[in-house]
Amino acid sequence: MTLLEQYKEKQKKISYLGHAASLMNWDKETTTPQGGMEKLAEAINYFQTEIFKLSTSDETFDLVCKLAEPEEFNKLDDVMQFDIKRNKRDLEKMRRLPQEVFEEYVKATTKASIVWPSAKRASDFSKFEKELEAVIEAVKKYHSYVNSDKQVYDALIDQFEEGMTQETIDRVFGNLRKELVPLVEEVTSRKEPDHSKFRFKVPSHVQDKVCRFLVEYMGMDMTRIAFGETEHPFTTSMNLDDVRITNHFKEDNFIEPLFSAIHEGGHAIFEQNIDHKYEGTEGGAIPYMGLHESQSRFYENILGRNINFWKPIWPQMTEMIPELKNVTLEEFYQEINSVEKSFIRTEADELTYCLHVILRYEIEREIFKGNVEVKDLPALWNSKMEELLGITPANDAEGILQDMHWSDGSFGYFPSYLLGSIYDGMFLEAIEKDLGNIDDILAAGDIRKITVWLKENIHQYGSTRISSEVLKTVCGKELTAEPLIKYFKKKYSA
Amino acid sequence: MTLLEQYKEKQKKISYLGHAASLMNWDKETTTPQGGMEKLAEAINYFQTEIFKLSTSDETFDLVCKLAEPEEFNKLDDVMQFDIKRNKRDLEKMRRLPQEVFEEYVKATTKASIVWPSAKRASDFSKFEKELEAVIEAVKKYHSYVNSDKQVYDALIDQFEEGMTQETIDRVFGNLRKELVPLVEEVTSRKEPDHSKFRFKVPSHVQDKVCRFLVEYMGMDMTRIAFGETEHPFTTSMNLDDVRITNHFKEDNFIEPLFSAIHEGGHAIFEQNIDHKYEGTEGGAIPYMGLHESQSRFYENILGRNINFWKPIWPQMTEMIPELKNVTLEEFYQEINSVEKSFIRTEADELTYCLHVILRYEIEREIFKGNVEVKDLPALWNSKMEELLGITPANDAEGILQDMHWSDGSFGYFPSYLLGSIYDGMFLEAIEKDLGNIDDILAAGDIRKITVWLKENIHQYGSTRISSEVLKTVCGKELTAEPLIKYFKKKYSA
Repeated sequence: MTLLEQYKEKQKKISYLGHAASLMNWDKETTTPQGGMEKLAEAINYFQTEIFKLSTSDETFDLVCKLAEPEEFNKLDDVMQFDIKRNKRDLEKMRRLPQEVFEEYVKATTKASIVWPSAKRASDFSKFEKELEAVIEAVKKYHSYVNSDKQVYDALIDQFEEGMTQETIDRVFGNLRKELVPLVEEVTSRKEPDHSKFRFKVPSHVQDKVCRFLVEYMGMDMTRIAFGETEHPFTTSMNLDDVRITNHFKEDNFIEPLFSAIHEGGHAIFEQNIDHKYEGTEGGAIPYMGLHESQSRFYENILGRNINFWKPIWPQMTEMIPELKNVTLEEFYQEINSVEKSFIRTEADELTYCLHVILRYEIEREIFKGNVEVKDLPALWNSKMEELLGITPANDAEGILQDMHWSDGSFGYFPSYLLGSIYDGMFLEAIEKDLGNIDDILAAGDIRKITVWLKENIHQYGSTRISSEVLKTVCGKELTAEPLIKYFKKKYSA
Repeated sequence: MTLLEQYKEKQKKISYLGHAASLMNWDKETTTPQGGMEKLAEAINYFQTEIFKLSTSDETFDLVCKLAEPEEFNKLDDVMQFDIKRNKRDLEKMRRLPQEVFEEYVKATTKASIVWPSAKRASDFSKFEKELEAVIEAVKKYHSYVNSDKQVYDALIDQFEEGMTQETIDRVFGNLRKELVPLVEEVTSRKEPDHSKFRFKVPSHVQDKVCRFLVEYMGMDMTRIAFGETEHPFTTSMNLDDVRITNHFKEDNFIEPLFSAIHEGGHAIFEQNIDHKYEGTEGGAIPYMGLHESQSRFYENILGRNINFWKPIWPQMTEMIPELKNVTLEEFYQEINSVEKSFIRTEADELTYCLHVILRYEIEREIFKGNVEVKDLPALWNSKMEELLGITPANDAEGILQDMHWSDGSFGYFPSYLLGSIYDGMFLEAIEKDLGNIDDILAAGDIRKITVWLKENIHQYGSTRISSEVLKTVCGKELTAEPLIKYFKKKYSA
């Protein structure tokens, strides 16, 4: 066997183990009965350990290094060149990590993940303080090995959005903050729409039907998608031809599941549209969370919360949900765009959501600059909430304890959500330049033209272009929040 | 590590791989989108090959042999003694099989499995003849190595129902045949019930709800069961705490899915009730298909088609399916017990079903006795159909091509279905001796008393007792069709 064949055989085996681990994780969230959870966790742990061992083994690393030598490397096609380059870089990093530091990290996050839910239930940050401190220390230590060339928080951001830095985020989030705080103030001072008109019940199986209709309308390939139900909706994929989205139907609130479907549908369309030549290689897996969120949020907010998205399908909507015949499309539009100052990020509207993310970003930055002690975090949270939204949480559960991300060590992840929206403002500009006014495209029922544009300009490349390269190629400029601000101002001044 | 620890570690690893393969098979039938099928099949093949390699490796066999030596064996508890004994016996058999004979078998069945659906669609046995011949030859060759001490068809039967032989089956099926042919003739000469009263539609989500209600009512542990939808319902399990059943809801025929749920529920309750001490060992996996079918068919027929099963839950039934308010329980009872001479086994009623199995058994027996050529099978099928049910299929699709079992080499499986019913007659006698009249137990809503009886007398032992031992212990006698005949005569003469 040639070196390349040996390497591909190894990657193939890893992909089978990965298929098993992904399927088990999917099953855990959608199907496994309570009684089977313990044994499932054990099996997942087995496969994840095997994958880690196999992909970081000396034998694999040796193959990668040999294939990275010029005389071998130059024989590879572009797909394998990208794969080898990326893999070598990541393996070199991971191999700097001493086993005991990795184990310490796993121990700290495991402990914190167990303690967090009970601290949240008790709404008492002090119960979580010690565990959070341990996670922060473990994270710092981890990155002092893996990314010794970077500030810890830059390394954390880079993990989820390659090439991104605090400096850049400070700039764009800063601009956004300045504009959004007064805009939210203005919009929320207006009269609230009448929510009572939307308080009817829609059975789960009807919501399921509507959601499938919506994602198909958006341009999902229905032969390569599976649907599931879960507590907290997510998207996953076994491979490029088996992508999966989940939803949480709520009989008392049918609107949230609809937008959840559009959001996860956006993630899934991205995955489906990656060029098949990258299947099973580094180029086929997308670690750029900002870019990924930009696609889900583009469908959810820029398209889904546009009145013209609904115009061509309003007859189908009212047929599937007959109660909608009692409201106008305009009223529905108002309802899905109502802005409210509220405490919980995941329930926030398109506009205030940005401020929720800015709050978390600013706190994380202070933590890793060493400017705040863990015990003082609740006070910092509450004062930032006051500063940004003019409201103060009544307790830790609706304040600092609401998100699980910190307990599992995912510092640096939150900015991705907002970066996604900022990219969306830029993509919107680019699409309108290429295809014309988006309102007209949507009103004509041509949403799939937009999906094709996203595929051709963004999706097909998988992870072979980092987000800043995508922006440069697609939008012809550097990251800027201006287009998003323009979009918000236009939409919410109306 | 001790020998036992080494062995257990190996079995643990096999169980993780088995979990992956089982989950993938479940997913294939319930969730995987069309696009993902090819890669899924590849992954399943990988895991099945790994399991086969690991469980039949020299290293494993060596460990098993060492643990089977008296000085080691006597130190083992009863669970591990059974495991080692069974594993040694099976490994010795499998290791007699030359690799190329195994591959020939896989090739023949794979080919036939691909050809069968199209031959069935074309309703043309001649298109399947050559492939079926190849499967029969491959099966014969396979067992000439693995079970050289047995007649081929005895070996095939033994595979699915250990210890069972043609001699025994000839006796009990013969008795049943003699009694059933005239009974069916008599019952079907009576006036048919009015099916039109049950031609209303019941939405899938309602059927799903009713099915979950029914299996919980039967005594299913709802914390250790998962539900799925599929084309052909089946039961599977990841382990004793994660058992899964599927259903195929039919809006036009809600009765079939209800009985499918009761049937698969019976299989699942058996799996759930196996003593946890057998988890992950040979005792925890049940290869006795007759015994397994006896449990599903006991719930489906003996209990589910008894009017008293429905009496205590009729209020819930009519609440969930309001159309049932327009019929009486007596009419429902007549509908679920209507007997009809028909061509398709899987749609047959409790009574004629027996004759469908006898037909297949008698044909399989002739094939392996060498008394019939493959090309003459359709004629044999049709003449047997005439002999047993007095009807002749119009074509091969509703005749000899209807079942998939022969294409995948599962000769010897069919008898299990009827053996299950024959055991049920005997179990019914034993239960009534212990607990009193079954009509009274059901009418009192005490079905779970029966489930507890089945658990204590049958389920908990897993596969540590073969079916004939179960009959001897539980019923105090050898296999006999008399109780089933008595049950049929009493029920259908009424």
